[in-house]
Amino acid sequence: MSPLDSPVRIRAVDGPDRPERTPELQALYRGFEQELLVPLWTEIGELMPAEPASKALPYRWRWRDLLPLAEQAGHLVPVGRGGERRAIALANPGLAGRPFATPTLWAAIQYLNPAEDAPVHRHTQNAFRFVVEGEGVWTVVNGDPVAMRRGDFLPQAGWHWHGHHNRSDRPMAWIDGLDIPFQYATDATFFEFGPDQVDTRETPERSYAERLWGHPGLRPLTHLSPTPATPLLAYRWEYTDRALTEQLALEAEGVPATIEPGHAAVRYTNPTTGGDVLPTVRAEFHRLAPGAQTAAVREVGSSVYQVFDGTGEVRVADTAWTVEHGDLFVVPSWAPLALVTETGLDLFRFTDTPVFERLHLDRSLQEGLRT
Amino acid sequence: MSPLDSPVRIRAVDGPDRPERTPELQALYRGFEQELLVPLWTEIGELMPAEPASKALPYRWRWRDLLPLAEQAGHLVPVGRGGERRAIALANPGLAGRPFATPTLWAAIQYLNPAEDAPVHRHTQNAFRFVVEGEGVWTVVNGDPVAMRRGDFLPQAGWHWHGHHNRSDRPMAWIDGLDIPFQYATDATFFEFGPDQVDTRETPERSYAERLWGHPGLRPLTHLSPTPATPLLAYRWEYTDRALTEQLALEAEGVPATIEPGHAAVRYTNPTTGGDVLPTVRAEFHRLAPGAQTAAVREVGSSVYQVFDGTGEVRVADTAWTVEHGDLFVVPSWAPLALVTETGLDLFRFTDTPVFERLHLDRSLQEGLRT
Amino acid sequence: MSPLDSPVRIRAVDGPDRPERTPELQALYRGFEQELLVPLWTEIGELMPAEPASKALPYRWRWRDLLPLAEQAGHLVPVGRGGERRAIALANPGLAGRPFATPTLWAAIQYLNPAEDAPVHRHTQNAFRFVVEGEGVWTVVNGDPVAMRRGDFLPQAGWHWHGHHNRSDRPMAWIDGLDIPFQYATDATFFEFGPDQVDTRETPERSYAERLWGHPGLRPLTHLSPTPATPLLAYRWEYTDRALTEQLALEAEGVPATIEPGHAAVRYTNPTTGGDVLPTVRAEFHRLAPGAQTAAVREVGSSVYQVFDGTGEVRVADTAWTVEHGDLFVVPSWAPLALVTETGLDLFRFTDTPVFERLHLDRSLQEGLRT
Amino acid sequence: MSPLDSPVRIRAVDGPDRPERTPELQALYRGFEQELLVPLWTEIGELMPAEPASKALPYRWRWRDLLPLAEQAGHLVPVGRGGERRAIALANPGLAGRPFATPTLWAAIQYLNPAEDAPVHRHTQNAFRFVVEGEGVWTVVNGDPVAMRRGDFLPQAGWHWHGHHNRSDRPMAWIDGLDIPFQYATDATFFEFGPDQVDTRETPERSYAERLWGHPGLRPLTHLSPTPATPLLAYRWEYTDRALTEQLALEAEGVPATIEPGHAAVRYTNPTTGGDVLPTVRAEFHRLAPGAQTAAVREVGSSVYQVFDGTGEVRVADTAWTVEHGDLFVVPSWAPLALVTETGLDLFRFTDTPVFERLHLDRSLQEGLRT
Repeated sequence: MSPLDSPVRIRAVDGPDRPERTPELQALYRGFEQELLVPLWTEIGELMPAEPASKALPYRWRWRDLLPLAEQAGHLVPVGRGGERRAIALANPGLAGRPFATPTLWAAIQYLNPAEDAPVHRHTQNAFRFVVEGEGVWTVVNGDPVAMRRGDFLPQAGWHWHGHHNRSDRPMAWIDGLDIPFQYATDATFFEFGPDQVDTRETPERSYAERLWGHPGLRPLTHLSPTPATPLLAYRWEYTDRALTEQLALEAEGVPATIEPGHAAVRYTNPTTGGDVLPTVRAEFHRLAPGAQTAAVREVGSSVYQVFDGTGEVRVADTAWTVEHGDLFVVPSWAPLALVTETGLDLFRFTDTPVFERLHLDRSLQEGLRT
Repeated sequence: MSPLDSPVRIRAVDGPDRPERTPELQALYRGFEQELLVPLWTEIGELMPAEPASKALPYRWRWRDLLPLAEQAGHLVPVGRGGERRAIALANPGLAGRPFATPTLWAAIQYLNPAEDAPVHRHTQNAFRFVVEGEGVWTVVNGDPVAMRRGDFLPQAGWHWHGHHNRSDRPMAWIDGLDIPFQYATDATFFEFGPDQVDTRETPERSYAERLWGHPGLRPLTHLSPTPATPLLAYRWEYTDRALTEQLALEAEGVPATIEPGHAAVRYTNPTTGGDVLPTVRAEFHRLAPGAQTAAVREVGSSVYQVFDGTGEVRVADTAWTVEHGDLFVVPSWAPLALVTETGLDLFRFTDTPVFERLHLDRSLQEGLRT
Repeated sequence: MSPLDSPVRIRAVDGPDRPERTPELQALYRGFEQELLVPLWTEIGELMPAEPASKALPYRWRWRDLLPLAEQAGHLVPVGRGGERRAIALANPGLAGRPFATPTLWAAIQYLNPAEDAPVHRHTQNAFRFVVEGEGVWTVVNGDPVAMRRGDFLPQAGWHWHGHHNRSDRPMAWIDGLDIPFQYATDATFFEFGPDQVDTRETPERSYAERLWGHPGLRPLTHLSPTPATPLLAYRWEYTDRALTEQLALEAEGVPATIEPGHAAVRYTNPTTGGDVLPTVRAEFHRLAPGAQTAAVREVGSSVYQVFDGTGEVRVADTAWTVEHGDLFVVPSWAPLALVTETGLDLFRFTDTPVFERLHLDRSLQEGLRT
Repeated sequence: MSPLDSPVRIRAVDGPDRPERTPELQALYRGFEQELLVPLWTEIGELMPAEPASKALPYRWRWRDLLPLAEQAGHLVPVGRGGERRAIALANPGLAGRPFATPTLWAAIQYLNPAEDAPVHRHTQNAFRFVVEGEGVWTVVNGDPVAMRRGDFLPQAGWHWHGHHNRSDRPMAWIDGLDIPFQYATDATFFEFGPDQVDTRETPERSYAERLWGHPGLRPLTHLSPTPATPLLAYRWEYTDRALTEQLALEAEGVPATIEPGHAAVRYTNPTTGGDVLPTVRAEFHRLAPGAQTAAVREVGSSVYQVFDGTGEVRVADTAWTVEHGDLFVVPSWAPLALVTETGLDLFRFTDTPVFERLHLDRSLQEGLRT
């Protein structure tokens, strides 16, 4: 490889502590480039900042802008082999036009017309669906048909076969979340095609998974080993809503049940471990009572939120937006987030925090108190 | 210590491989006794059998015999400080008259008259209650009043304050299970008295614990650390029954959901870990469909069963009984158990298996296949 | 079963809080006995004490008394099939003449003459050997010959084949520790005979196990899964001594390395987990510098100590002994232990603490500070 | 944000399954770009390949080219505050000129002149040093001076203070490995400056860490909690060499000890857990006996190797190089690696595999057998 086509260019960095750019140093730098070497001293400022300095930007996408585009895609773009899904991803403005909501997380709106099938495939990427509105689609996971309805959270662990089909007479849109950017950056991804159509046209109210696993604290004796991802394929809105309602009611009765005043929250968990539903993705639902506001919190790792109900104001670092039903927004790593609402605010959230917890890289900071 | 009052007596063991009992050997044995020593070679047959040879015997107690005695105790024996509980324990006929159902497990019928309080205390023993019939008592755990109703399983982890009070106009009887013999044998037990009366007279339908933890797969963000015992204080019959019904229905639909044909079963689990509800005690509920029978199974560790509903025949080693509502029976370690029913059989079960699993001493054997 | 031969006898308990012993109560108690029932209220004082009240007593055995008896057994008692081992166990005076050092632990002196084989067997009991003096025996574990020498700790996990053979021209005595009483009490024990003679007569300096595992922090890529017990079959005195010497030297240099002034200690650990060498047994070596004394400590669980070197005074609850080379002593659960030495004291120790830690029953108390 | 400055450009993808690029579709794509959206169907081929398709390339750097450049840097570039280290990183030719050996791993040659200090700092990046030749530098970790000598592996967990100083009269070069690219990509990095000079000028043969932790299977009672990274700060060549020599000797004696014929290997492990030395980085040492060759293996995750001794041929996918002392080479994720040597080959290796194992994304494939 000649210097001319070397992919390496040593950047000029001047400053009181940096070496003077003499001809000898220039020659050394040419030598580095030729041998595909880069010195730390020109790069340390960017690579090793005092605290996480994400290229990702805080950003909000409005549902009222996204949904019409998805509907238009429903008219123009077929679903089928090759493209696999009619999914339209959030592209963080800091991430060079890649379809990445954050450096680790993918978030997309997926749209399926009546009678359409999203073909069957499997991949190592961990995935989930969250339904902000509508119903009528069944996602079929390893042969188990799972109804998708408003407010439901539907995890989809890596390397499980899955396809979707719309059995209603109306289109349906929902949100997909995956760890695509993480697995892409770290070269971990495998993908395999399955049949073009889903395995079953059944449309049960409840999946096999729910019938086996959807009973609080009860484990079938046929399934006693812990699994890396949750075996429960649907977390129904009915239960989420009830859990949040109870937390606020308990708070009102003086029982500690909320993480701060007026702020109820649940984490979706894997019943075989009590831990996160997916190895790389955490999912939660937060409810702010009318008039509530949250303390500003920074966390290592990035989050995507979708407003399920209500309205509020979101402040991420120096940015602030008002948000309403369906809006999505992104909180980069270590950017402080605060929420405030007059009318009440229901928020679905997903993050990459399990990655950091499992690697002992997690940190958070709330109002000056580092944990 | 003189030989006369030595607690040690070397037993005479003769046999082809054993030393001849010469005067010298007799003198040696006297020396052992004097120094509080015992040789292995006289004891190994009992101490190290080829497989577990429990002193505990298979035994069945009939509910129709127990309940009248408990009622009689309700007339004659007060509940209060000192005795603490009107609890009457199963005494395995092999265990020298001790109130031990098995070498590790305690099982008792507890009885509380209207308006009575069982005073508040706490102990390191892990406990639970199972309600085979009746209602009207609230158990108050660390200030949380938990209703006790038919079919409910109510775990009570070690070192939690608890008392019971009967708020109905009828007496109530239920089953207590604890690890008293295990903690007694290993010298681990602590006990502390609390108030003579329970902290609260409230009689809510659902406890705080259920309102926080009783939502399948949902974890409050206020409680994210795993706990050794379950924070869910009531496992209601409604859910247990539904889970078992679903397993049998799934089986009928061709979906693997039962551990053998017609045999549905759930384990009560700690939602913070997916593991057993108590560190030393496992609890399960088994349902045999009409006409079902189980394969004979041996397990390291002992079990106590109570018949919740239905009738059947129980075979433990060479013993067989018919059982019906409320009957309790004991399966010693490594004794083979098989069940058969014509009418259907609902069984509550608890065991000491977590002890063995955590110490890598668990084994089981089913029809010649050791696992 | 008639009342006459019932194994149950309700004990009479009188007191201000106990029911008056009316004829009706007497009749009730007869009913209990007939149905194999025992009330809690007559038993609670013994079964549920305020803190562990072990039946085991603090006791010391003198090496100078034990060793001659072992030598005498060497003359009179053959080693071979059936008796299996020439092992003479400590029988705690509180434990009814059973060969149990504590309610959970077995400790014995084993003695092997020149050219003798202790035959091959395996059992679920976890075992180890500690060598207070002498050498010349190899223990062969699953075919791996392991030299036994002064100061060595040689763990022997449950269900491994093992036999011993003396290849020297002198007898050898050492200490065996096992969890026999624990597994006996809980009915977990399996036993299987192997060949009458050991598999190999090789006498290598170092075992295969040491050659694979005896390199600090280095793990062979052939063995990457954690194992319940340590794969390292010998912990040589050379390393133990050096580690303790270093701790005291570091203390002298002002580096925190001792658990209290002048008190160095190491725990033998499983290199595949960092935890205890055996699932049910912890083993440690303690060194007190001349003039050191320890704070009084209580712990749930029982210990057996053997003096390896030096002299000192041991105080357990109200008992005190002077101890010297080879002496063994027992500390029952929750009995406070304090040590003091003028000349320095080297102590081998083993305990049942892993049982309690894994079941969340461990506690300790040092000078008023409960942890 | 106007379409003109949108960071998003939808790529044109044509094909049998892709939608025709009608004006309506073009307009839809403009709408996506305007709203910072990117469809999956144009990206799926790159983002979700059938198996990992790393942008990183297999590459080899020759020590005889690197070292002179490092020496030249030693003349021209000072070490001190700001640049922090005279470290020159491998820049994988597939990774756009970034100083990244692989998408997750940093590897650099560091060079320190006599009497120089590399100033004290700490960072969340996990690091280690490996010494291919030379000695004379002490790295001071949280005040503990650790000698660096030929063949030593010196782990340096995240967020520990550390600096280096050269106490000899000769320069010293060694290899640094870190997870900089991983933490940079995922926004997890924190950094803090310490003093300009190291805390101590002491030059002990062995560090405090080694004196506490360097005894096989022995754990100081002062340090009983598991730590995310190893507390042992130096893994000395003496032990590594001996372990490898033993494995080959055992193989010759017929004892299973090598991972394939003539291929000995150890993993550096954390003695508090038995697992990897660092949460994100695995380190190993491999020795091929003369004439040995390895089976081709693919693994999820990337590796960097340095030749410590000997010569051989390395084949990575379609690339092959001969390698000798000091040469470094990179194996991207899922690229098959095979080694062959006539003279024998000693190799240090580090990888990002712990990341994938902890997230359940690890896979490997050897000669058609997927595990």
